Amino acid sequence: MAELLKGAAVVAALNEKMIADITELKAKGVNPTLAILRVGERPDDISYEKGATKRAETVGVDVKNVLLPNDVTQEELIKNVEALNNDASVHGVLIFRPLPKHLDEEAVRQTLSPVKDIDGITDGSLAGVFTGNNNGYPPCTAQACMEILDYYGVDCKGKRAVVVGRSLVVGKPAAMMLTAKHATVTICHTRTVDMPSVVKQAEIVVVAAGKMRAITKDYFSDGQVVVDVGINWDDAANKLAGDVDFDAAEPIVGAITPVPGGVGTVTTSVLISHVVAAAKRAQ
Amino acid sequence: MAELLKGAAVVAALNEKMIADITELKAKGVNPTLAILRVGERPDDISYEKGATKRAETVGVDVKNVLLPNDVTQEELIKNVEALNNDASVHGVLIFRPLPKHLDEEAVRQTLSPVKDIDGITDGSLAGVFTGNNNGYPPCTAQACMEILDYYGVDCKGKRAVVVGRSLVVGKPAAMMLTAKHATVTICHTRTVDMPSVVKQAEIVVVAAGKMRAITKDYFSDGQVVVDVGINWDDAANKLAGDVDFDAAEPIVGAITPVPGGVGTVTTSVLISHVVAAAKRAQ
Repeated sequence: MAELLKGAAVVAALNEKMIADITELKAKGVNPTLAILRVGERPDDISYEKGATKRAETVGVDVKNVLLPNDVTQEELIKNVEALNNDASVHGVLIFRPLPKHLDEEAVRQTLSPVKDIDGITDGSLAGVFTGNNNGYPPCTAQACMEILDYYGVDCKGKRAVVVGRSLVVGKPAAMMLTAKHATVTICHTRTVDMPSVVKQAEIVVVAAGKMRAITKDYFSDGQVVVDVGINWDDAANKLAGDVDFDAAEPIVGAITPVPGGVGTVTTSVLISHVVAAAKRAQ
Repeated sequence: MAELLKGAAVVAALNEKMIADITELKAKGVNPTLAILRVGERPDDISYEKGATKRAETVGVDVKNVLLPNDVTQEELIKNVEALNNDASVHGVLIFRPLPKHLDEEAVRQTLSPVKDIDGITDGSLAGVFTGNNNGYPPCTAQACMEILDYYGVDCKGKRAVVVGRSLVVGKPAAMMLTAKHATVTICHTRTVDMPSVVKQAEIVVVAAGKMRAITKDYFSDGQVVVDVGINWDDAANKLAGDVDFDAAEPIVGAITPVPGGVGTVTTSVLISHVVAAAKRAQ
């Protein structure tokens, strides 16, 4: 029986720390505020917005919603980003992406002020996670993986770690953050030859394969710590499933995050914690 | 007998391409120009400056030297960086680091215009190599490793690669560039446990350990391609030596770069090629 690395306990610990910081900020008259800029009505965005808003309210972070129509012009969009940059009452800005195809996402990314980039999309934040200099904010999902390892006392130093996936939101930043914690990290991806034998050698495995139950029994070995980033809807079973075949992995490995209730739930709290950190840095 | 991956042939190929580009630029009245900003008289800096100047002259790139005294003020230094940013006749700026201790290197790095950052030190360049979006310029030494692999027809796709060292100038950017070429990359460092067995599994090994002949016989296996970034002065032998124990590795591996005459010589050409690229982008 693998230890279940549930996200709820990690969230509770993050919330506790945040509430202390927020109390201190409010005593100084500062209300930490997250601005959420959404273009259009994509159900995924709306669902994440609801979750983030609820999580923010729980700890006392204000949310300011900026809603733009699906056919907003590039000029109007940039004007809104600039307004949020200049609004001293806003500490962090989340912009849902992908944007509709007629909009220039790169220009939006370059416009956003790095100090408000709590979602880790600007060059400043990306360079920060690459260099490890703590400028900016790492992508929330990658940091959520690290928060889980930290909370459950998994010492990365000298461990072999494998990250499955090389995306900018999980794989690459997770690899950099694990390296900063002195793990020996291997990045696997779709072109990796004989991935099962590579993953098997690792003591820590972070899976962001982007495919439901893609990582099966053959990939695992005794005692591994497995962090499953995937969130997929299994139509047949009518429930959420990860990128790891949980039922196959669980009897083999030492510890594993569940889906749902694992990385996903921690990610939202990391986002809110970045807003609080940004409000503190702004003082 | 391992194949010797000499830098000279790579330099000749890079020069050929550069000269074609430079001819085209000069026909349009553009003289690609590198500004070298040096504070003080460190022998390492002066030696690199001489090499870069000679390499620039060979292909027809102009060099503008900005020399500041060792006790220059932060304000004066920043003023000089800003002047180079604003000088349309300068396409790339190389700033020798480390700067004297009384100067704020981070402020200098943040001041330099990303479009002139041919040495890959700004957030724009670092984010570019991390994301693979080709914004900015990768650190020259890391790119030199890739140029050597490219020139000698080493296909990285699906290969296992190990990078020894996690510095910002070689290890991390080389890992990102190898990943972009679809290698499965592992980053080793001083905290790696049983490094020989990790390195032995790789088909491509990039060594930037920062220690003379640190990587010995036990690390190597048949047919490996070894790129040695190290440049150390061996007092006893009165000659340069790499981070790889060349005499031990050479009978085992398939191909290896010599020191001197390997990565180092290519690095300077990469720097000059970035100036040419910057001049092209500025058109």
